[in-house]
Amino acid sequence: MPVATKLKKTSNEIPTLVRVDPSQPGETQANIHTRWHPEIPCVATVPVGKPFRVECLDYSGSQVHNDDNADDIVHLDHDSDHHLSGPFSVPGSMPGDVLEIEILDVTPFPDHNWGYCVTAPGLGSLDDEDKETLVTKSIWDFYGNETSSRHVPHVAFQGRPHAGVIGTAPSKKLLEHWVKRESDLEVATAGKAGCSLPQPKGAYVGQDLDDELREKIYREGARTSPGREHGGNIDIGLATRGSRMYLPVYIPGASLSVGDTHFCQSDGEPTTAIEMAGIVTLRVNIIPQGVQQLCMKSPMYRTSPSEPIYRDRLCFTGLSVDKDGNQTNQSGLLAYRNAAFQAIEYLISFGYTREQAYILLSAAPIDSRVVATANRPNFVVSIGLPTEIFDFDILPRVNGITDDKKRVIQGPALPSVRVNGKVADGFNHEH
Amino acid sequence: MPVATKLKKTSNEIPTLVRVDPSQPGETQANIHTRWHPEIPCVATVPVGKPFRVECLDYSGSQVHNDDNADDIVHLDHDSDHHLSGPFSVPGSMPGDVLEIEILDVTPFPDHNWGYCVTAPGLGSLDDEDKETLVTKSIWDFYGNETSSRHVPHVAFQGRPHAGVIGTAPSKKLLEHWVKRESDLEVATAGKAGCSLPQPKGAYVGQDLDDELREKIYREGARTSPGREHGGNIDIGLATRGSRMYLPVYIPGASLSVGDTHFCQSDGEPTTAIEMAGIVTLRVNIIPQGVQQLCMKSPMYRTSPSEPIYRDRLCFTGLSVDKDGNQTNQSGLLAYRNAAFQAIEYLISFGYTREQAYILLSAAPIDSRVVATANRPNFVVSIGLPTEIFDFDILPRVNGITDDKKRVIQGPALPSVRVNGKVADGFNHEH
Amino acid sequence: MPVATKLKKTSNEIPTLVRVDPSQPGETQANIHTRWHPEIPCVATVPVGKPFRVECLDYSGSQVHNDDNADDIVHLDHDSDHHLSGPFSVPGSMPGDVLEIEILDVTPFPDHNWGYCVTAPGLGSLDDEDKETLVTKSIWDFYGNETSSRHVPHVAFQGRPHAGVIGTAPSKKLLEHWVKRESDLEVATAGKAGCSLPQPKGAYVGQDLDDELREKIYREGARTSPGREHGGNIDIGLATRGSRMYLPVYIPGASLSVGDTHFCQSDGEPTTAIEMAGIVTLRVNIIPQGVQQLCMKSPMYRTSPSEPIYRDRLCFTGLSVDKDGNQTNQSGLLAYRNAAFQAIEYLISFGYTREQAYILLSAAPIDSRVVATANRPNFVVSIGLPTEIFDFDILPRVNGITDDKKRVIQGPALPSVRVNGKVADGFNHEH
Amino acid sequence: MPVATKLKKTSNEIPTLVRVDPSQPGETQANIHTRWHPEIPCVATVPVGKPFRVECLDYSGSQVHNDDNADDIVHLDHDSDHHLSGPFSVPGSMPGDVLEIEILDVTPFPDHNWGYCVTAPGLGSLDDEDKETLVTKSIWDFYGNETSSRHVPHVAFQGRPHAGVIGTAPSKKLLEHWVKRESDLEVATAGKAGCSLPQPKGAYVGQDLDDELREKIYREGARTSPGREHGGNIDIGLATRGSRMYLPVYIPGASLSVGDTHFCQSDGEPTTAIEMAGIVTLRVNIIPQGVQQLCMKSPMYRTSPSEPIYRDRLCFTGLSVDKDGNQTNQSGLLAYRNAAFQAIEYLISFGYTREQAYILLSAAPIDSRVVATANRPNFVVSIGLPTEIFDFDILPRVNGITDDKKRVIQGPALPSVRVNGKVADGFNHEH
Repeated sequence: MPVATKLKKTSNEIPTLVRVDPSQPGETQANIHTRWHPEIPCVATVPVGKPFRVECLDYSGSQVHNDDNADDIVHLDHDSDHHLSGPFSVPGSMPGDVLEIEILDVTPFPDHNWGYCVTAPGLGSLDDEDKETLVTKSIWDFYGNETSSRHVPHVAFQGRPHAGVIGTAPSKKLLEHWVKRESDLEVATAGKAGCSLPQPKGAYVGQDLDDELREKIYREGARTSPGREHGGNIDIGLATRGSRMYLPVYIPGASLSVGDTHFCQSDGEPTTAIEMAGIVTLRVNIIPQGVQQLCMKSPMYRTSPSEPIYRDRLCFTGLSVDKDGNQTNQSGLLAYRNAAFQAIEYLISFGYTREQAYILLSAAPIDSRVVATANRPNFVVSIGLPTEIFDFDILPRVNGITDDKKRVIQGPALPSVRVNGKVADGFNHEH
Repeated sequence: MPVATKLKKTSNEIPTLVRVDPSQPGETQANIHTRWHPEIPCVATVPVGKPFRVECLDYSGSQVHNDDNADDIVHLDHDSDHHLSGPFSVPGSMPGDVLEIEILDVTPFPDHNWGYCVTAPGLGSLDDEDKETLVTKSIWDFYGNETSSRHVPHVAFQGRPHAGVIGTAPSKKLLEHWVKRESDLEVATAGKAGCSLPQPKGAYVGQDLDDELREKIYREGARTSPGREHGGNIDIGLATRGSRMYLPVYIPGASLSVGDTHFCQSDGEPTTAIEMAGIVTLRVNIIPQGVQQLCMKSPMYRTSPSEPIYRDRLCFTGLSVDKDGNQTNQSGLLAYRNAAFQAIEYLISFGYTREQAYILLSAAPIDSRVVATANRPNFVVSIGLPTEIFDFDILPRVNGITDDKKRVIQGPALPSVRVNGKVADGFNHEH
Repeated sequence: MPVATKLKKTSNEIPTLVRVDPSQPGETQANIHTRWHPEIPCVATVPVGKPFRVECLDYSGSQVHNDDNADDIVHLDHDSDHHLSGPFSVPGSMPGDVLEIEILDVTPFPDHNWGYCVTAPGLGSLDDEDKETLVTKSIWDFYGNETSSRHVPHVAFQGRPHAGVIGTAPSKKLLEHWVKRESDLEVATAGKAGCSLPQPKGAYVGQDLDDELREKIYREGARTSPGREHGGNIDIGLATRGSRMYLPVYIPGASLSVGDTHFCQSDGEPTTAIEMAGIVTLRVNIIPQGVQQLCMKSPMYRTSPSEPIYRDRLCFTGLSVDKDGNQTNQSGLLAYRNAAFQAIEYLISFGYTREQAYILLSAAPIDSRVVATANRPNFVVSIGLPTEIFDFDILPRVNGITDDKKRVIQGPALPSVRVNGKVADGFNHEH
Repeated sequence: MPVATKLKKTSNEIPTLVRVDPSQPGETQANIHTRWHPEIPCVATVPVGKPFRVECLDYSGSQVHNDDNADDIVHLDHDSDHHLSGPFSVPGSMPGDVLEIEILDVTPFPDHNWGYCVTAPGLGSLDDEDKETLVTKSIWDFYGNETSSRHVPHVAFQGRPHAGVIGTAPSKKLLEHWVKRESDLEVATAGKAGCSLPQPKGAYVGQDLDDELREKIYREGARTSPGREHGGNIDIGLATRGSRMYLPVYIPGASLSVGDTHFCQSDGEPTTAIEMAGIVTLRVNIIPQGVQQLCMKSPMYRTSPSEPIYRDRLCFTGLSVDKDGNQTNQSGLLAYRNAAFQAIEYLISFGYTREQAYILLSAAPIDSRVVATANRPNFVVSIGLPTEIFDFDILPRVNGITDDKKRVIQGPALPSVRVNGKVADGFNHEH
């Protein structure tokens, strides 16, 4: 008769620390917040060293609908920006520690298999004073790890799902520093930098708070738009399942928040990623005094063996010379923009609209490299389109791109709105 | 009795259009030039559609020696900068066409299996006013496609050999435009941009020329430091064997030049690559009216299936905030520098010197991505160290980096020279 | 006022054609079958060109439990073998057509995040008369796309989820051919080949059938163990999300079935994969007369850009020489076994048990190549262990594997049962 | 005045241990041998831990010429088979040790940029009694790491150069064992196994030997065709630059030999690789008592980050059922052959000849996997054609492969000879 080894039964049920409803407005839901502040109470405690799940709204807090009409985009409220889940307390973590956050998984909700991209004047890094950007919305359907859009035909790709925002709470001092440095820039640039400064409008914390604390957080809380040294909206397209993120701790318990789930995003993300509501599975470890140990000044991450790789890429370079032919002193943003504009023109030559091309540069698994930084005065960036994601041949041929190719792109138009050359109300950034 | 198919014998002997001697100074050799100018006479004609070879000096024109002494670096003449082979006439190519240049191979000379890296104050993109950069030289030995250095221990990697410079000659008009835009920037920045403007000092053309033309080219010729819309010193680390480059033609016959061969270079190349003399095998095709067909404004390239891939990478991010805590308006260069400084500090924690770390960031097959560009006011860049190239474990562990790890790095010192906090004479860039 | 493009709302809700309960025995559930037969009625119709989901039981039909006791394995009933979902009718498909089946996704059930591996005497391809294989069970927990096992310590890896079985129904003629050829082999080998021939024991069809048809199917239906020209249990570890499978159609409507979902499996799968209940998302297209067009004799597939790649591998070769030193005439199975045994011995040298090593060879994302086939009389196979999946260094070093390394492996024992050197009842294969 | 660090000058000149002339017959050259025997005197001593070069003839010893006529193939002498360089003494290595051999580089001779493939009846693993294989020769030109053939149009690929043969000398006892086991098989199969047994015809050792020893070696020396436990003709296509090989030592000093350089070879190599004369750069380390430490029974290797990867592959499976429909008991060779035949038929459907397709399967960087080994009675193998190496679209489409596609292949015919259904004299294997 067999003699079996007897061990106690164990289980790997993964707890879900926060649940959300992606069909309801973010401002009606508990455990959601839209600002960074050290005094936002934690909603749950992380089981250190063990996996847990967090459900997340899309960044807009469910303002965008799966239809073929861009009206919701015209009226999108950006004052709230990222609707984050949490914060979560990491017991035992102290200022100066580093959290090692294993990104075990990021998926859409099973019954919510779609996301969206947005273009709009004033949104993103490719504003072009000569060419108006329409307000558009494109809906991307998810089929497993593949996505395609009825609004951007002839392209399909494997995603690299990730959380655009993952960050620890700033200390009071760090928060003040953020506000000061961004306010200073706003002043110095007469508002052209487009920094989003603290304001109660759009502030939201789903937790029960006494009025005084709520008012304080709404007044002081840092906006979530930029990535900062704590992580936040750092939008690392490679931080997909199987990767790890390293973030510093500023207050006891860390107060980790996560949100802004993306199905896919390019390196560089010039407008939006494929924004989606999603479910994030994480495991958090603590590296004591990691800030010093790792010489950490801003987030670190480790890549994943599961990242989809599109190896054959057609790449466009950009230099730091502006469109009027003026040389800048190594402007990296301009180099990026130039590479992107060249890729967009190239895609337009196949029949895509400017906005469809812009979306592709932002949503697809596109590789963007810093090419050269030491050859003054030019900073060089390249952007690589994976050739395999198109169902037609995008490669240059000795005969160039024929007229025949221009007829390639057909399909329903991209839902769009022209707003008379003016920035739509919902957008808080101006040229 | 067997009946054999009879066809004429063919041959694939690959002609070498230019030969050079990597042991002799560039200025003593024919077929070498150090400026961009449309009137530099072509030295050979490209067999369109067929492979050919070009031998190239290292960028310095053989000024650097394989020894353990950095004196040659202290006295390095940068006025000549890149010693290029060519130019080559591409018969049939006309302004507006695009050259498709297949990079069939880039190798060192068989009996010259080494290259070098340089650091120096004023050179590269990581000047740091708080920390003096020593003048250093490191010698890298090549063992097939592997390289390692007796001056930077505990690391070895596969190279991705490429030509740092490959470009077509500018038209007279384009040349004038380059000079004007760079002069304007020099004026606007009171010289801080560090542009290298035309000057006879360091100019060289190895061809026979009448005095008047020589004087004209030396006076007008554009310096080779920056990459520009024609290609030139665009330093694309991914443009290794198996890749293709697309460059515009500005004058009849194109006048293609190539040089600045590298054994390996990071994305971003903050100081020098592993500079070497090398042999480049190319095949050139013409895309008629390609500039219009491909919407080309600056070079394009296509990646290679032969690029070595180090998939597991530890990545460091950088934001566009300066070291005093001031927020810039999306400075890409600053973001890159911040990511690089963080990686350097991390490497120093294992025992490398600052200069060894700096060299690694520039010489190794490091991936550098533009991460996010739309999250004002921060531009985010990341730099990824391949974990496999070190012979010790560089990954963060829950116990951090122990003191034990700090003893990892041992070996001969990096040849270096301290120049009393002053820029060495040979360097033409100032802070 | 903005003018919006108005298009009708669309939806991508993905229909689930079959639902199953992974906590209940397969034989109690509708829409499950355990034999191949053309007369098994279809349970649903595939929406050609559109995605759909199919829920699948693990191959055993829920016989295995998540605990630390191998008793369920000792009593495992293999007569039923694969519990398949379907069959599904593909409208419009005719004999001679080929189905292009896009494997859009394969995932575990959200609340069933575990799978198991099995070893047992008589199971798998690594029987070794000199060394008894214990009956063991290991439980693998899934954390996103990562898996690890409390029973096989010091290893974790990204999965490549796939359906081990996907196949079309045979025609009556093909079914008869299968039975004949396998019966002939059973006779020729006096039962040593271990073919599973048709038998009512273990046969199951969940659909309502009249008694006569049920009896016929149970009597005639082909066993599901071997992969065959229709696909079936072809166990392609690379057929993960983003891949495509091409299968021939033998009867009108194709009658496609799917099941045997795996979280991960090596190339070669010498014992079981990480067996799990799972949800498969597919999209099916028809290639008319594809059998002729594609010259198809057995299944084809196309790889996926989403396959996790572990690039650094330590590989073991195997030759077709048996352990007594006898040369076989290019036995591929023997070459595979020899490579596997060598890898197993190597893993044992770090402290793993023989069964743990055996499981790793079968469950992990291991690359196995046919190396050389033309060098008579040796057929050479290699098996590559990805170095990154271990949390210790498995590479050979100049000092070899030290005794210190042998202490690496610690952790709870593998649940196992010794069955007195006899094959456990549940297993239908004998040595 | 600067103070420089002074260190002694060092050099990395890589010694070449053996030079050969690829334009002269192997049998006229020193340092070449065509048999395995422990008493062949070493021709040079390996500098342990330091790189060295070895020049190698092609396997045939320069019998094949770069022309368009297959007559040399008809008369190819296979009795000599592999013309190996060496052997080399590895000082300090003792029986039971393992050599770690770093494959630093494998390249063609600079002025000998071509290789060849051969098909012939009786050669390779795809003999097909229904279809005669013509004697053919195809010449492949090398352009850097790219190759293409004037005889096999519409395809070009990056190579993975390697040495097909690398092995240590057998001990006397091992040599006797090899001969016995292969002779036994020849007897058991009545010669059908096609083993090449020792014979003086074709034996050659370029070293000075006294007559008695020469006669002994020629009489006893093992033939080089099969890979064996010492390595030898193990033909690992992945063992390209950057990889490492691990081989056991059987006699003091190891007596390492290398040869049979290939520009590229598929996994499985059913006929010849792209055979070339080449230069191999190696570095050898000794793992004392490595055979025991590494549990080594046959060679091990480690993959290279420089291996070209073609990620998108169309794969063909093969089962162990013969063409008459008879089921074998997991014949791996048959499974491989079936997958190969299906791929060949597929390629023929685009217009390639049978021999051109056969060559592609053997010469191109094709991935071949052992898919499944435990699903009795079928062993499953797959062969994956990289889609990117063709200049037309090889993927199945919903409309199948149109007649239009069949017109794709054009170009000069493959040099070939029909030998009246008879095996050409030069081939020593019979059906």
